[in-house]
Amino acid sequence: MTRECTLQQLADLVGGSVVGDPHLPVRALNGIEHAGPGEITFVLDVRQLPLPAHCQAVACIVPRDAGPMTLPTIVTPQPSVAAAQIHTFLLSTPFAAQGIHPSAIIGNDCTIPAAVSIGPLVSLGDGVVLGERVTIHPGAVIGNHTVIGDDSILHARVVVAERCTIGKRVILHHGAVIGSDGFGFATDSRGQHYKKPQVGTVRIDDDVEIGANSCVDRAAFGVTWIKSGARIDNLVMVGHNVVVGENSILVAQAGIAGSTTLGRNVVLGAKAGVAGHLHLGDQVMAAAMSGIHNNQPAGARIGGAPAFEVRSWGRATAAFTRLPEMAKELRRLRKEVDRLTGLLGSTEHEKGTEA
Amino acid sequence: MTRECTLQQLADLVGGSVVGDPHLPVRALNGIEHAGPGEITFVLDVRQLPLPAHCQAVACIVPRDAGPMTLPTIVTPQPSVAAAQIHTFLLSTPFAAQGIHPSAIIGNDCTIPAAVSIGPLVSLGDGVVLGERVTIHPGAVIGNHTVIGDDSILHARVVVAERCTIGKRVILHHGAVIGSDGFGFATDSRGQHYKKPQVGTVRIDDDVEIGANSCVDRAAFGVTWIKSGARIDNLVMVGHNVVVGENSILVAQAGIAGSTTLGRNVVLGAKAGVAGHLHLGDQVMAAAMSGIHNNQPAGARIGGAPAFEVRSWGRATAAFTRLPEMAKELRRLRKEVDRLTGLLGSTEHEKGTEA
Amino acid sequence: MTRECTLQQLADLVGGSVVGDPHLPVRALNGIEHAGPGEITFVLDVRQLPLPAHCQAVACIVPRDAGPMTLPTIVTPQPSVAAAQIHTFLLSTPFAAQGIHPSAIIGNDCTIPAAVSIGPLVSLGDGVVLGERVTIHPGAVIGNHTVIGDDSILHARVVVAERCTIGKRVILHHGAVIGSDGFGFATDSRGQHYKKPQVGTVRIDDDVEIGANSCVDRAAFGVTWIKSGARIDNLVMVGHNVVVGENSILVAQAGIAGSTTLGRNVVLGAKAGVAGHLHLGDQVMAAAMSGIHNNQPAGARIGGAPAFEVRSWGRATAAFTRLPEMAKELRRLRKEVDRLTGLLGSTEHEKGTEA
Repeated sequence: MTRECTLQQLADLVGGSVVGDPHLPVRALNGIEHAGPGEITFVLDVRQLPLPAHCQAVACIVPRDAGPMTLPTIVTPQPSVAAAQIHTFLLSTPFAAQGIHPSAIIGNDCTIPAAVSIGPLVSLGDGVVLGERVTIHPGAVIGNHTVIGDDSILHARVVVAERCTIGKRVILHHGAVIGSDGFGFATDSRGQHYKKPQVGTVRIDDDVEIGANSCVDRAAFGVTWIKSGARIDNLVMVGHNVVVGENSILVAQAGIAGSTTLGRNVVLGAKAGVAGHLHLGDQVMAAAMSGIHNNQPAGARIGGAPAFEVRSWGRATAAFTRLPEMAKELRRLRKEVDRLTGLLGSTEHEKGTEA
Repeated sequence: MTRECTLQQLADLVGGSVVGDPHLPVRALNGIEHAGPGEITFVLDVRQLPLPAHCQAVACIVPRDAGPMTLPTIVTPQPSVAAAQIHTFLLSTPFAAQGIHPSAIIGNDCTIPAAVSIGPLVSLGDGVVLGERVTIHPGAVIGNHTVIGDDSILHARVVVAERCTIGKRVILHHGAVIGSDGFGFATDSRGQHYKKPQVGTVRIDDDVEIGANSCVDRAAFGVTWIKSGARIDNLVMVGHNVVVGENSILVAQAGIAGSTTLGRNVVLGAKAGVAGHLHLGDQVMAAAMSGIHNNQPAGARIGGAPAFEVRSWGRATAAFTRLPEMAKELRRLRKEVDRLTGLLGSTEHEKGTEA
Repeated sequence: MTRECTLQQLADLVGGSVVGDPHLPVRALNGIEHAGPGEITFVLDVRQLPLPAHCQAVACIVPRDAGPMTLPTIVTPQPSVAAAQIHTFLLSTPFAAQGIHPSAIIGNDCTIPAAVSIGPLVSLGDGVVLGERVTIHPGAVIGNHTVIGDDSILHARVVVAERCTIGKRVILHHGAVIGSDGFGFATDSRGQHYKKPQVGTVRIDDDVEIGANSCVDRAAFGVTWIKSGARIDNLVMVGHNVVVGENSILVAQAGIAGSTTLGRNVVLGAKAGVAGHLHLGDQVMAAAMSGIHNNQPAGARIGGAPAFEVRSWGRATAAFTRLPEMAKELRRLRKEVDRLTGLLGSTEHEKGTEA
């Protein structure tokens, strides 16, 4: 289901300008290879123009006026942002509350507005508070006294355990687990472990997205905190008492150990890991598979395990591929230097100087 | 529950030949350490013969005629393949449809043959189409307009989200998530992210197996495609628009970023990661924990992160363990060369030559 | 809900001694930053004393008598163990059986004591045996003929597949999957895979804890075995026929391939991986992100991928950061040695010696 707009309306939405017919009707956005009649597409670079002959798009979002084109354009400096906004807008429909499915189990003393959609086989504990227009898909489980903000979407089989707080417009993807116990033990001198009760909670702020089967552990004491706008991919592990800063991005299978804090707009590449009790400053970027063992100042770009400055890491990994050759060269040099030393030793001897 | 056969029947099944009594009854297959009376076992190499005295197997699958043996054998060049086929055959039972459990929730306009087994607390959306002899275990969730092919098995708590297509004889293990949103955002100059709607779908072809709690994201546009015979282990991440070729193997905790395509019979070792927008040719093999940042030609064998040719990588990792010693040797050589240069400098001076 | 005790009672519980008022009432334990009136806190080192002025704790667990303090203390050599024990004790409440929720689906021939709590939308197969005081949270699925020991807790959406055995006081966190099929295939000469039936099971001993969305595969034949006291974090993969020794710790996103055995008190750091068919002796410690390809003797401390002795690995990684500089130095030395050789060649020539 989509809505139809004029090209000018879409340009206004993203603060862009139209080149061509402003009244052109547009009903959907699609990739260059998939766009059909009535659909707009986008390019990130004018060198992608002109579009291939088989592309049926009726308009294109472009980063700057590309001169004479075969089709109308919206010119905007950030076409990918504009495309995301326009695509979202064209797909958006008014919230249609489906109410509470009769197979859902609702605990005592829950606060549930009329305008929600709670799917089949959902379980809500006691004292759960739902915001307006919350959608909970089949099989999700919400623990006692958890609060879910307006317009949030919990996909199938999500768990949000007890006493967590989820903000507005949050999206939790299928199978994500919010509020499982942190991994905390005390070990005695005989190697036996004693569980440390994890009595804290999880707070997820507005506009956060958490991927399928990812886990955010509750705090030992206090709170594990995912700040607004953070985007977390699938199969990511966020340990207890971690703080993930605003708009930070954790790519798939990344992991953050307990009590580490991330600033704003930090990016952890896929499978990157961060040790516990560290701080990564704003806008730190860690390459995929980085293993981060030290605090990082704002803006640091790092790679490797253990991680260090990313360009140095790039050079080191390039050199690494030649390491066996370096070892061989080192052995050759040793031999040659020994020979030279032998020769010069005698020379020295002849000259009567000491080593 | 098992069926009983003669040794000859089993040999015929796998194209092998019997040495010994062809009428010997066999009712099960088991490992050497577990085999009991009436059970057949197998060895991959005749050097594993004779079997240990305590082994109670009545027959053995062997790779070639091993001369006089104490027990009958099936000779076949690939004993492990034969064992898998014989084991599967001996365990197989006719499909016994259990129908739809009364606690399952079935959406509108679903197409469900009589011969299916839909367990307790399963949720099917609207317009779901199931093939013949489909089994859906407890707690699984199927989204709207998803199609499941004949003889497929969805284990407990699987999610297949809306509009996905699952082939025949597919096995989805417990907790696997098929069709979650791809991880796609556009970021503006202030670092704010805009979700790119993920309007594509997932197609899984025949005879695919996907492991527990693994995730296959839906495409942004178009399709994420797992081709026939691919085998995916637990906790694997397959990003949006990825194509996994026929019979490819993704071992546990591997991950593939968006839009990367794999050829046939590619093997990604455990925890291997592949960056986005790459192509790995047929039969590429990547060692466990590889980090793949470049296209790979068919047949490439690679390891390391960043990954390169596997034998070179092996030599480089061996040299790596001696790196501190190499650094020390380098410092020693520097000292010695400086000394030699000093000595020869004077020699040169004496000879009146310049450096 | 908490219970109230005197300081002396708590000291007795952990074998510690009181300095100060033994009759002081204590109702809860909390971290230094969170402790309020009536609460005890703890320090691991007397250098953390005195507590900050704003800390409202009424008592403190300390590792040794710290001299005159402003508040009463419990002195015990392992304050973190004592804190875990005291915290657990203060939080503990008698088991309050909630019975079987009417929406739970119970199979045939199950053995279920009166004193259990089975939450909404739980599915038990046939022949399931539950111990006393078992708690099963919403949405969990238990397969046929599985046995769960006394006082075990299965959190929301856990799956324990058929024929598994779970010990006493086991905690399975949300979304964990126990007993999924092992990843076993035989591949023929054309690259086609044949599934090896996984007919074994999983045995989890007493006092084990398994993290959210972690997976423990069933054995091909025989048993995958997690021994008593082992602690497994989130998103961990345990392959078929693996044995995890007593009190071993597997940190988040670690993985163990098939048939590998771990001794007692082994620690695998986060994201560490162990290849198949290996043995790690007692108390092996592997750093985060280790890739273990060889057997390890008891007590080995290792890091890196491939992993080797941890201090050597530390030195090698330090040298790695200087690798490009080493390569440059090597090239400089080559040039200088070539020059020296040229000079000495002529010297030699003059002296009539051969190279």
